Amino acid sequence: MNEKKNNVCNFIIFGIKGDLSKRKILPSLYYLEKKNNIHDNTCIIGISRSNWDKINYINMIKKSLNIFLKEKINKKIWIKFISRFKFCNLNVYYSNNFIKLKKILNFKNRISINYCAMPSNTIPAICKGLGKEKINKKSSFIVIEKPIGSSLKTYNYINNKILKYFNESQIYRIDHYLGKETIINLLAFRFSNILFLKNWSNQIIDSIQITVSEEIGIEGRIEYFNKTGQIKDMIQNHLLQILTIITMEVPIKLNINSIKEEKIKIINSLRRFNFNNINKNVVLGQYTNNNINGVNIPSYLEEIGLNKNSNTETFVSIRADIDNLRWAGVPFYLRSGKRLKKKLSEIVIYFKTLPINLFNKFNKKIPQNKLIIRLQPNEGIEIKILNKLIGLNYKYELKLTKLNFNFYKKNNNEYKTDAYEFLISELMKGDKSFFVSYNELEESWKWVDSIVNSCNIVKKKPILYKSGTWGPEESDILLKKDGRKWNK
Amino acid sequence: MNEKKNNVCNFIIFGIKGDLSKRKILPSLYYLEKKNNIHDNTCIIGISRSNWDKINYINMIKKSLNIFLKEKINKKIWIKFISRFKFCNLNVYYSNNFIKLKKILNFKNRISINYCAMPSNTIPAICKGLGKEKINKKSSFIVIEKPIGSSLKTYNYINNKILKYFNESQIYRIDHYLGKETIINLLAFRFSNILFLKNWSNQIIDSIQITVSEEIGIEGRIEYFNKTGQIKDMIQNHLLQILTIITMEVPIKLNINSIKEEKIKIINSLRRFNFNNINKNVVLGQYTNNNINGVNIPSYLEEIGLNKNSNTETFVSIRADIDNLRWAGVPFYLRSGKRLKKKLSEIVIYFKTLPINLFNKFNKKIPQNKLIIRLQPNEGIEIKILNKLIGLNYKYELKLTKLNFNFYKKNNNEYKTDAYEFLISELMKGDKSFFVSYNELEESWKWVDSIVNSCNIVKKKPILYKSGTWGPEESDILLKKDGRKWNK
Repeated sequence: MNEKKNNVCNFIIFGIKGDLSKRKILPSLYYLEKKNNIHDNTCIIGISRSNWDKINYINMIKKSLNIFLKEKINKKIWIKFISRFKFCNLNVYYSNNFIKLKKILNFKNRISINYCAMPSNTIPAICKGLGKEKINKKSSFIVIEKPIGSSLKTYNYINNKILKYFNESQIYRIDHYLGKETIINLLAFRFSNILFLKNWSNQIIDSIQITVSEEIGIEGRIEYFNKTGQIKDMIQNHLLQILTIITMEVPIKLNINSIKEEKIKIINSLRRFNFNNINKNVVLGQYTNNNINGVNIPSYLEEIGLNKNSNTETFVSIRADIDNLRWAGVPFYLRSGKRLKKKLSEIVIYFKTLPINLFNKFNKKIPQNKLIIRLQPNEGIEIKILNKLIGLNYKYELKLTKLNFNFYKKNNNEYKTDAYEFLISELMKGDKSFFVSYNELEESWKWVDSIVNSCNIVKKKPILYKSGTWGPEESDILLKKDGRKWNK
Repeated sequence: MNEKKNNVCNFIIFGIKGDLSKRKILPSLYYLEKKNNIHDNTCIIGISRSNWDKINYINMIKKSLNIFLKEKINKKIWIKFISRFKFCNLNVYYSNNFIKLKKILNFKNRISINYCAMPSNTIPAICKGLGKEKINKKSSFIVIEKPIGSSLKTYNYINNKILKYFNESQIYRIDHYLGKETIINLLAFRFSNILFLKNWSNQIIDSIQITVSEEIGIEGRIEYFNKTGQIKDMIQNHLLQILTIITMEVPIKLNINSIKEEKIKIINSLRRFNFNNINKNVVLGQYTNNNINGVNIPSYLEEIGLNKNSNTETFVSIRADIDNLRWAGVPFYLRSGKRLKKKLSEIVIYFKTLPINLFNKFNKKIPQNKLIIRLQPNEGIEIKILNKLIGLNYKYELKLTKLNFNFYKKNNNEYKTDAYEFLISELMKGDKSFFVSYNELEESWKWVDSIVNSCNIVKKKPILYKSGTWGPEESDILLKKDGRKWNK
């Protein structure tokens, strides 16, 4: 069990009416309330620039909980929960407004968590306002969401603005993937099982695939997504997190600093892209319309508005290489996209085939051992090994068979802790282990910039793919030319 | 699929009325008939010293099939099956009698398989008789069952008698364990999966346990068993087979000679026992009576006859050591007994714990990774690996979780090919891959003799244990003093 207790907090949500707040933060806080994981004296302060009174806010919260909770609101929990709330109408761009916030805060024996649930370009203004009213003291923390900025340059710009008012130790950068049980388990799994720890290198691993696919499109986030694209929306944060956790050396300890150091070394070793190698290693795609089971799925261009044109990618696959001793020669195939065949997050580790086939009389080719880590859905671990076929007439005819473990029991509606619930609980405990450091993100922007800039130099355009497929054919060719193919 | 076809045979069963014939050989032949796995022109010749006519024999066969088949006799199959039979009343100790056999045999374009389904001390007489009538030509083979002899000396005696009439290439020694799908799969599994092949040594394996336990007692085999004992009945053949297959180096090819060579090397490397180390490494037991679920289970002494005393062991556990580079330092715990808690054959491979526990803040001790190969029941493979506990309040609390594969589908009465069925089919094909060579058995007798002789020197007596338990407590202590315990 965690030894740390939740602190008494001012939990301040900038953008309480926003999408992130409604979908994730408010439901997570409610669940934490239900589990008695919020200190009795903790206040929650909701901020927006609306001219609302308390009733409006409470109705909004109730309404969004009704939509986003997986269960009905319990009256008793609701009463305790809502009694914590205070609200404050302020425009973050007017730092004079922050006096309103200060007036309703009590700072005695409590920490203040300033959660920026707004686009990252508003962060400088929020910090400035907090600084103006000295809500940036040691016991005050600022929480920001990835992606922060849209390049190394803009990331550094925002970061420098924050650093004017907060120290690095006060900054919590959220990549909600780090709060997922299955991602945390990656560390547990990798560093506790000798059977895999001793086999985690190019000595025996052939290649690794990471797929994070979505069935949905951009869900109305037109302006944000069209500026951002799939590389910055998914690769720069989530897939890179998975990649570093799955490939880093064993950290000296399991604390944030040791883990950070190892992750940064991996990102440093990631081969950069340039105009020479970009076309060979990166495929961009954009979805077109399709009729799936009688439903018309609009194209990306239709979704963003009929008269608009766009070269924003909704799909990307990348062959990445880590140029260190452990991983040299092992290709990492990353794939992420919207409107794909199904929602899926998985890591597939392919082991090498044996250098000699003892069974060649019975099997021309022996399939590879595979380790599949399913992050979503059916969270679990799967190992594919070879056994003989059963029956009188078979001797050494081999078949790939599956050994399976489900993280959650099958057909059991066990409640899965949401990543946000876990991370908010960590925020309240003041534990930074599962948040992203400045340097790590800085390094990852360097690599991502090398993709984006090289694409710009060669004027790379997304290849159209039908909604409901696995992206453009070129994504398959990316592997095929290496003699491989995507898992299933 | 096997390329070899079943030959036209004279399939001669010496001891057609015996237990082995009734339980195993006749049902297997019936199933092979059903599967069209016997050549149309093959004859089966049943031999016993009774003065029976054909009707008696046919009735006996029908009766035993009715008992030992897992299905009803099919009339059409039965008619074809029984039409193959000829019978011959002869006493194998009178070689003059063998003329009767010769008279009914047709040798043209067919091989003769002389299956000795009688105690091994009758084999010399059978060979002599066959030799006298020249039923020992190149196309004639002799099939004998383990255990052959009861020591290196008696084994060699029998063997030399056989060699007077048959070459080594004509001799098929059956250890029916080698015909079990799960044992054959051991070879397939070990030499096709890089994930295990690369991890098959003292570098990462801590210890290996092999258990072959029975719930039943000696089932009326009083005279045989009381002379033989558990070491010679089970360790000398089945457990030693499993041990060598699981530990041998990769053979150059998957043929009998290459495999034999590697197995012999292992048996040669098995540390011998002497009066100094026998008590530390070997535990003998004998079952006493017990009341299990209201049923009175007699003691061994009661089973063999009330007035008899006996020091025959019905249980044995052994710590064996293989003194070669791959296995030095890895203890092999072998355990086999009758009237134990349950019928079970399994191999459990314990991997080492990691030399450092990164998770010590959350887990004082990390359990070992395990690979369990279940030979019986629920034939399959199981890997135990560590994953984190699920839930908001757990970070790196680890739990051993099971990844499982069942060789046969669960709740599916899939017909499992019996080992004898497979081996008889191999006999008819003339394929020796799954039979035991002279040298291998010779070497294994040397090791077994070192156990038996050392026990005699120190006058070791079996420790009494209650029926329905896992043997005497001393068997647990054998592991406990090494800091280990038996799996479940």
